[in-house]
Amino acid sequence: MPAERPETLRVFSLNCWGIRFFSQLCTQRYEMIGELLGREQHDIALLQEVWSEKDFLFLKRKLSSSHPYTHYFKSGVFGSGLAVFSKHRIQDALLYKYSLNGYPYMLHQGDWFGGKAVGLVIVDIFGLKAHVYVTHLHAEYSRAQDEYLPHRMVQSWELLQFVRHTSCGADLVVLGGDLNMHPQDLGNRLLRSHTGLRDCYTETDTFDGCEDGHTLIAANHFSKKQDLIPFEKGIRIDYILMKGSQKVSMKCESLSTTKGPVADKPYPYSDHEALTAELALLHSEDSRQHGSSNALAVSEQMDVVAEARAVVKEGLCQTEALRDKATYLMFSGLLLLLLPLAMAFLPCFCSFSTLGLLGAVCMSLLLSGAMLYLLFTTHIKVLKETDDQMMLTSNDLQTKLTGCRLSGSPSSDGSPELQPLSPFKREE
Amino acid sequence: MPAERPETLRVFSLNCWGIRFFSQLCTQRYEMIGELLGREQHDIALLQEVWSEKDFLFLKRKLSSSHPYTHYFKSGVFGSGLAVFSKHRIQDALLYKYSLNGYPYMLHQGDWFGGKAVGLVIVDIFGLKAHVYVTHLHAEYSRAQDEYLPHRMVQSWELLQFVRHTSCGADLVVLGGDLNMHPQDLGNRLLRSHTGLRDCYTETDTFDGCEDGHTLIAANHFSKKQDLIPFEKGIRIDYILMKGSQKVSMKCESLSTTKGPVADKPYPYSDHEALTAELALLHSEDSRQHGSSNALAVSEQMDVVAEARAVVKEGLCQTEALRDKATYLMFSGLLLLLLPLAMAFLPCFCSFSTLGLLGAVCMSLLLSGAMLYLLFTTHIKVLKETDDQMMLTSNDLQTKLTGCRLSGSPSSDGSPELQPLSPFKREE
Repeated sequence: MPAERPETLRVFSLNCWGIRFFSQLCTQRYEMIGELLGREQHDIALLQEVWSEKDFLFLKRKLSSSHPYTHYFKSGVFGSGLAVFSKHRIQDALLYKYSLNGYPYMLHQGDWFGGKAVGLVIVDIFGLKAHVYVTHLHAEYSRAQDEYLPHRMVQSWELLQFVRHTSCGADLVVLGGDLNMHPQDLGNRLLRSHTGLRDCYTETDTFDGCEDGHTLIAANHFSKKQDLIPFEKGIRIDYILMKGSQKVSMKCESLSTTKGPVADKPYPYSDHEALTAELALLHSEDSRQHGSSNALAVSEQMDVVAEARAVVKEGLCQTEALRDKATYLMFSGLLLLLLPLAMAFLPCFCSFSTLGLLGAVCMSLLLSGAMLYLLFTTHIKVLKETDDQMMLTSNDLQTKLTGCRLSGSPSSDGSPELQPLSPFKREE
Repeated sequence: MPAERPETLRVFSLNCWGIRFFSQLCTQRYEMIGELLGREQHDIALLQEVWSEKDFLFLKRKLSSSHPYTHYFKSGVFGSGLAVFSKHRIQDALLYKYSLNGYPYMLHQGDWFGGKAVGLVIVDIFGLKAHVYVTHLHAEYSRAQDEYLPHRMVQSWELLQFVRHTSCGADLVVLGGDLNMHPQDLGNRLLRSHTGLRDCYTETDTFDGCEDGHTLIAANHFSKKQDLIPFEKGIRIDYILMKGSQKVSMKCESLSTTKGPVADKPYPYSDHEALTAELALLHSEDSRQHGSSNALAVSEQMDVVAEARAVVKEGLCQTEALRDKATYLMFSGLLLLLLPLAMAFLPCFCSFSTLGLLGAVCMSLLLSGAMLYLLFTTHIKVLKETDDQMMLTSNDLQTKLTGCRLSGSPSSDGSPELQPLSPFKREE
């Protein structure tokens, strides 16, 4: 009998920082990224912030022989920025655009204009069905006063719900991307505990890269130093996560990151560091190993959902306050509009033009207020929907936990092995 | 041995026409709908156009004993209008908001403001995992000149992708709602052929209801007669679809519709007719029966995707033309803005107010143009993404078809039974 040797899967992830006319040395860096991918021949490369389709098409041409299968996810005004390059055949693709993603009036931040999303490609890898996800969550502009925390929490929830509900038939699951969250941030814990995805950095046999796996470091020529305060050494916000199935178990054999400057090149690939993971695919020996299979895990899932619900509820209060302000603005516009209307009927010194100008100013107040009111109303709907879904999950976990405690025998996905009532037969 | 008797599942679907202050006799009709649901005790009731949360809460209170499990899907400005009432425990819920859904400036149609979506609830029915979908697609305002056809096509595609990718672990699948498409419309054929969902009307053993299963009929007091031209007898646009699994097969034992007027009541429940299906759940004897399992079916799937791609491409051309118009509007505003600017520097008769008014008019032209430009750009992104996904599916089907023809032995989901390369072992 031949010795068993696992097949490995090499996965690459990089936030390319590809904002045309804004990101420094964009063209040159895409040239370098193309060279790297062509040389390294990863099985799958997951890219974020490829904001321009032209840059995607450049990479597609450059990698046509090494990575003949590609998908560029289109969404929002600028696109989703998400791209996949694969050596293996992509069978299908699906996109889920996050329901909350910043505010359109924060023009300088621009998150709202990029249709941030999670993209799924189903790839046939060595005859196995791999569900490969790529995503990019809303940026954290201030850790001390993070007004986008509820947005990122909703995105984390939608991401985990999407992964949970679309990965059921997969032999293996890989998720790569820029989560804009530190390893122990709530959204990250929520994602891992509810999907069973495991972090390659904490699971790897060998690691070669920046200290503590950081992917935003001060030594990177392009990184904004103020983003790193108070984490002078750097932060880890880019991830490759993985999960096996009853058929396949996965093991991270090695993980590496780039370390800022690139040998023989004057600058780094991006303002983020790139990740490369080598994942071993093994026969799954224990079909139970991938689930969160005990009362402790279910209890942890419940705790983390409760924490997340608190953040969503806080976001709801903030957004309701914002909607109230929009309502005041709208009514101020409406009241002020009465002024030129009244003046038009009074004998006074005002000319038609003055009245028109005043009217225009009032109308713009009214319209701005109305548009903001609509915006915040949709945000409130999203936050409420997320809270409702979290409550359902919480109740379901409670039922499982009760079952666990009663039977002491939970099933592989964390649900108790309750004997179902027979749906088919009844004694006559 | 006891005689085998299948369990049945009673499913109800109704578009409630619940636009507060617009839909006639809303409060009275919700009272009637509540009575009907309380009396009939369906296992699951799928409602659409429950636009007001107050009305949902009214039904929730009224049905608290008969249907203790509910979910109201929140999305968009007015909500999604989708609600589920269930006798069985709802374990989880997930919402997918359609990416294209009309235009915000079509205020009188209002589709854009309702966040049209597909909602999924996972229900524990007699120990079986039922994935129950409820949806409502964009209205068809003119069949002869249907400018929203590409929007409905994108929605059909997103609906089928969502169902395909989230129903994998289900024991049984039920979809109910107002698809706003006739039975043989392209979007409907696309949905059925790619999900394997079967139409209860065409599958039922017994039927009691309007001629040809119509759900919009002239005999309904509330229906708009111009919507029925040239289909005087009525049209069928509301559906209950179903699908079994390897574990459970489903059979529609009976289907009924309301027939306009209601006995002992002065008016119908809604402007649509309600559907009630009795579905028998049987032990699945042949695990292959639920798939599209032959080359003919794969070929049909390919044809219908090709047709759908043509519609999406046509939609893309139309939307690009609209974006061009938005660009002209934007530039006209910008050019006209030069006029008051120039006048401000010239010695002329214009007052400050006249200049200001002129400036305000030009600015509003410019801003309107810019906002429309952004809107149509996102629409173009969505249409391109849909086309790309359709192309991937088309290519995958082509591969399967080639496999079918070579092996003559396709698998249950339509994919050929190719022997995969071993992902685990190699001779050393």
